Amino acid sequence: MAQYSAKLDGVFLALADPTRRAVIHRLGRGPASVGELAREATMTLPSFMKHVRMLESNGLIRTAKSGRVRTCVLDRERLAVVEDWLAEQRRLWGERTDRLERFVTNSKERNTT
Amino acid sequence: MAQYSAKLDGVFLALADPTRRAVIHRLGRGPASVGELAREATMTLPSFMKHVRMLESNGLIRTAKSGRVRTCVLDRERLAVVEDWLAEQRRLWGERTDRLERFVTNSKERNTT
Repeated sequence: MAQYSAKLDGVFLALADPTRRAVIHRLGRGPASVGELAREATMTLPSFMKHVRMLESNGLIRTAKSGRVRTCVLDRERLAVVEDWLAEQRRLWGERTDRLERFVTNSKERNTT
Repeated sequence: MAQYSAKLDGVFLALADPTRRAVIHRLGRGPASVGELAREATMTLPSFMKHVRMLESNGLIRTAKSGRVRTCVLDRERLAVVEDWLAEQRRLWGERTDRLERFVTNSKERNTT
């Protein structure tokens, strides 16, 4: 549970930046090199590498070096952690709405009998 | 677009903390007072208030004071911003898978004719 929570901290923090979200968005269309991504972000390579490392250390992307080129690939599974958390909240809201509906229905029944 | 991006930054940052996620989770079951939430978080009120302010300034909760009690209510709409962003990524992945499937199907057709 603590591990899951720490994972969520990292993923949410990684997503709290427009450059990193743009990388995830771009990689959703397929792998790309760090150089290509840095150009699209109009950033110097050293500045951009900080974002790449942040995304990689939080499991949102994987990178592999071949010769002088480092290629980045999206790890979709890690975004599923966020989706799961959101689904869990929605489930709670649903339960609450159900309880409220039952309460309203029961009150109506009591009032009509 | 820049406004939407800044909103996402704030929401993701607000969610990157277990105490704040616990508050959202708790408020999913219904409103609660700051005092009650702070006790559940086993935090002093001043430390806890920083989290409340962070959640409120990013639109995830609303608070209202009545006498000496400040009550917090979840604003579900703000979490929808995150859901929309995730759905947009999924849509991209779907398009990519579609393109790949078309490519594979077309290749097969070319090979069998």
